[in-house]
Amino acid sequence: MSNPSEKTFTIDLEPIGKRIQLNPDKTIADAAMFAGIPLVTSCNGLGICASCKILLVQGQLTAPTVGEKSKLSEAAISEGIRLACQARPLSDVRIHIPPGSLTFGQQLQIEGIHNLIPLSPTISPLNVQLSPPSQSDLDSDFERLRKVYQQYYPEPLRASLSVLRTLPGCLRKNNWNVRLILKNNELVSILPTDSEFFGLALDIGSTKIAAYWVSLNNGTIIKQAGFMNPQISYGEDVVNRISFANQGKKQQNKLQQVLIESINQHILETCRELNIYEEQIVDLVVVGNTVIHHLFCGLPVRSMGEAPYVSVVKKALTIPSSEFNLFVAPGAKIYLPPNIAGYVGADHTAALSAVRLFETGKTICLIDIGTNTEISLIHNKKIIACSCASGPAFEGAHIRDGMRAAPGAIEKVSIQNNTVSFSTIGQKQPVGICGSGILSVAAEMRKNAIIDHRGVFQKKHPLTRTEGKQSYFVLAESDQLNNNHAITISRSDINEIQLAKGAIRTGIEILCQKSGIIPQQIDQFLIAGAFGTYLDLESAIEIGMFPDVELDRFQQIGNAAGVGARELLINAEQRHQLEIMADQIEYVELTSELTFNDTYVLALYLEKNDSLFTKI
Amino acid sequence: MSNPSEKTFTIDLEPIGKRIQLNPDKTIADAAMFAGIPLVTSCNGLGICASCKILLVQGQLTAPTVGEKSKLSEAAISEGIRLACQARPLSDVRIHIPPGSLTFGQQLQIEGIHNLIPLSPTISPLNVQLSPPSQSDLDSDFERLRKVYQQYYPEPLRASLSVLRTLPGCLRKNNWNVRLILKNNELVSILPTDSEFFGLALDIGSTKIAAYWVSLNNGTIIKQAGFMNPQISYGEDVVNRISFANQGKKQQNKLQQVLIESINQHILETCRELNIYEEQIVDLVVVGNTVIHHLFCGLPVRSMGEAPYVSVVKKALTIPSSEFNLFVAPGAKIYLPPNIAGYVGADHTAALSAVRLFETGKTICLIDIGTNTEISLIHNKKIIACSCASGPAFEGAHIRDGMRAAPGAIEKVSIQNNTVSFSTIGQKQPVGICGSGILSVAAEMRKNAIIDHRGVFQKKHPLTRTEGKQSYFVLAESDQLNNNHAITISRSDINEIQLAKGAIRTGIEILCQKSGIIPQQIDQFLIAGAFGTYLDLESAIEIGMFPDVELDRFQQIGNAAGVGARELLINAEQRHQLEIMADQIEYVELTSELTFNDTYVLALYLEKNDSLFTKI
Repeated sequence: MSNPSEKTFTIDLEPIGKRIQLNPDKTIADAAMFAGIPLVTSCNGLGICASCKILLVQGQLTAPTVGEKSKLSEAAISEGIRLACQARPLSDVRIHIPPGSLTFGQQLQIEGIHNLIPLSPTISPLNVQLSPPSQSDLDSDFERLRKVYQQYYPEPLRASLSVLRTLPGCLRKNNWNVRLILKNNELVSILPTDSEFFGLALDIGSTKIAAYWVSLNNGTIIKQAGFMNPQISYGEDVVNRISFANQGKKQQNKLQQVLIESINQHILETCRELNIYEEQIVDLVVVGNTVIHHLFCGLPVRSMGEAPYVSVVKKALTIPSSEFNLFVAPGAKIYLPPNIAGYVGADHTAALSAVRLFETGKTICLIDIGTNTEISLIHNKKIIACSCASGPAFEGAHIRDGMRAAPGAIEKVSIQNNTVSFSTIGQKQPVGICGSGILSVAAEMRKNAIIDHRGVFQKKHPLTRTEGKQSYFVLAESDQLNNNHAITISRSDINEIQLAKGAIRTGIEILCQKSGIIPQQIDQFLIAGAFGTYLDLESAIEIGMFPDVELDRFQQIGNAAGVGARELLINAEQRHQLEIMADQIEYVELTSELTFNDTYVLALYLEKNDSLFTKI
Repeated sequence: MSNPSEKTFTIDLEPIGKRIQLNPDKTIADAAMFAGIPLVTSCNGLGICASCKILLVQGQLTAPTVGEKSKLSEAAISEGIRLACQARPLSDVRIHIPPGSLTFGQQLQIEGIHNLIPLSPTISPLNVQLSPPSQSDLDSDFERLRKVYQQYYPEPLRASLSVLRTLPGCLRKNNWNVRLILKNNELVSILPTDSEFFGLALDIGSTKIAAYWVSLNNGTIIKQAGFMNPQISYGEDVVNRISFANQGKKQQNKLQQVLIESINQHILETCRELNIYEEQIVDLVVVGNTVIHHLFCGLPVRSMGEAPYVSVVKKALTIPSSEFNLFVAPGAKIYLPPNIAGYVGADHTAALSAVRLFETGKTICLIDIGTNTEISLIHNKKIIACSCASGPAFEGAHIRDGMRAAPGAIEKVSIQNNTVSFSTIGQKQPVGICGSGILSVAAEMRKNAIIDHRGVFQKKHPLTRTEGKQSYFVLAESDQLNNNHAITISRSDINEIQLAKGAIRTGIEILCQKSGIIPQQIDQFLIAGAFGTYLDLESAIEIGMFPDVELDRFQQIGNAAGVGARELLINAEQRHQLEIMADQIEYVELTSELTFNDTYVLALYLEKNDSLFTKI
């Protein structure tokens, strides 16, 4: 725990637009970390790799360190270039983080092999030179272009109205000498002959949107950024958003509109930052859960709000971006991978695509944890998938002192000899407990017999108190904190954790039952998603959320959906393979399974075990 | 000439929304005629066919005649049903004209044979029954529909996002028992199983829009109406509209937007009147000149405003109606026939399609007269086409006392023994002179040697006056009229007529030259368009606008473009044939022809002749 500091500074991190409060003893690299901005820090903050260059736009930082002076030219320093891992604030500051200082997210490593995706996008460039019209050559612009195209390809060139609208201007501005961007024989964009072109992959979560900008000239990721999903103003989770959308067409449209607007805002800012034009964004992939997918598309979500929770469409969609008025090339199309069910969406199929389940021949379980947890199990070349209503406990909701994974959240707890210790995100004064902390505290309470396997508090344990009929465990006393109440874990908090972990474990168990295996037979557990990346595996096993198998069978793979979306952007064959795979996935509606109730009851118990199977 | 009457009544004709002033001695049928509303009057106003039934909504009419009493039930009369040819106003009245009392426009008769178009539209219905989703059948709505469709057709069913958005509601509202409207294997609309479905053909002129509603169940025309093109507020003719559009994207968009809005307004009113839903409008054909075509599509028109006047696109377009937010079925598509050149548009190709040039084997000249006159000549199975800048003189513009063909316009003039007589549209007090009147007066002035072949006024003719250097011919003295100035024809008015008729004649001559024939070899002259339908052929020949051939070689065929559009709506093969034909049409840019100047100079002369050819 860090000492509480009286004074903090406001750090504005641009162009991402994050604002956070920072103690003066922390570096700008810390600020970026607290803000969730993936800064390159190859030397672990020693100031020797110079990869975390930033630009001071406004305010004052500490004087350049010896490390900075050795790595940065005097000219650079005088311009305000600094190393984030060295510089500390002396006032409120505004910092610009150049794209080169941002990492491109965690590498997805499966079976020790990086995915090496060949660059083979769905679009391709063709430079052409046209002769201008004259009294003796009165062809229309499009027929003129078609004739030239026919010299290269036999199929007739096609173009949507959106592209035709830009055609006369583009041809004349570029003196009839242009680069065509083509998707098969359809015109996507008309650019200057030396113009680069880009793809954009969007992973739209209920809370956050991850955007990946990829050069389709060479396949490199040129920018990665996160921004809020503005739909959150109209409903914290997808269930609330369905309710909102059900109020009427206007509300349904609003949910689509705010999403499109925020994506357009991101595109505008990024284009400005990278000095590119929206006409250069020629292909898009969008993934999200089925409700988000439908809201993005403007499809009704009512049927997903009531049993049997069916969606409007499952198959992959390829939609002209002009239908959404997205600020991209006029003929760009948006690829949305297939959904599997009302609560197993295109984000999960994208993740499945990224993890190459089929290639290894092993039995693999992919678990993407969120308010709704999607689980897929591949065994004997057959994939079955389910959705578990794990609820928001692991996002800190429905927990009295719960909070999102943000600075000040208790993220890990240890109880030894009746002494509690914990760490917080950003080593800040504790203000609450986040998902990984909740998991950790439950495991520690169980190990120390503060609660039993049913979650019942042991009477008169020195670390628990009772108020009325409610027992609770004190994590931090109020006199240790700035605020005026203690951080505690109650019986009902434990109950929320049981419901969450029970749902996930039930999913794993039932998929095993359907595949005729026990969890011990699963070679690999791939844990995806933000919470999945940070959770403490031992704690999860301790309380029976995951089966008790060797730790090295687990891999925390980060945002697999985002990786999948990027791969679908740069490789057309990947889309084809995914669609074939999605067709073969068997969806299991857990609550329809005969063994569901019995499995769920056992899965609620807080105990380490390798299988619930034999108990049923 | 009718006597001027002191008192007139205001007649509101609904649902078309026309308001006109009517003398009390005129019938409601006259009112409809003056307003240009095509009322069925099979018995020529004798009151014995009862086909012109109307409904009195407000105000007073003369008492029912014996004819009305014999044809209408007492109940009907007490409800306000009357015969338009019998009833006269006793006050301002509001009249509703039911669709059954409207004609379906003139039949297009070529070679004495009515076009009999088999009903074979691009869309077809399929009634299907689906089982609703359940816990044991969790398919999405669209996959559920696809599986049922697959029982009928091998190709996978496709649907745009616009259609998918309506799918869940339509399926549930109709208890999973629906009529699919399909275009090939693509879903256009989802209707109740007993629902009719309709097509809409629009002929968008610079001034007026003609709309034809066709049942695609049985091919009958259920409604035909005309309404104003609201773009007229932003430019009287296409040249002015190009200038307006060139001011910026906002202005360009405005011209599209007002057009779409007025079409939507027409659709809303017609749906209400006919008691149908917009989802039942499942196919559309839109024709117009190339500039109107481009403005409708939101395509830039700048290149058509400057030499060499090329368009953005010529080929036929099939565009999702959702791109225009038209109030029609969500998956309906708009078919726009091909353009031939910047000033020979989709309306002309539609007209060519209607007149079946190829079928007769004869040499035929199709002339569609307007501000811009399009002429096509077929000879030896080869079609060549041109555009003539005939200007607005025949629409009454640029003529001192000119006016549109509206009540009170002088439409025919006769001069005998130095006495002038004329008739006006609607036999009303003359207020000006319309296109056919201008043509007629020029011919009469020439026959009576008031002007010579150059258009020069004969000095001291009793019917002419001179003011300063300007000579003019008096059609009606001011003391004969309500207004305070005489209706006259000046030297410069004659000059406008010469420019107009000279342009048209030059087109005919040059197409003949290009085909290696003289005008005498043309078997048929088909004169299309509103002015073309009403012009006096003898006058046109008298002043050399048309070659001097037998009158029976001329046919005034009305709105051939509208007929063509309707045929393209009900017969898919017709579209295919038109596209093949359009590809073969050779466009002739008149002003690029070496003989243009010489031909034009001769064509300006006001003299009857069978060919200018031998004179060059």
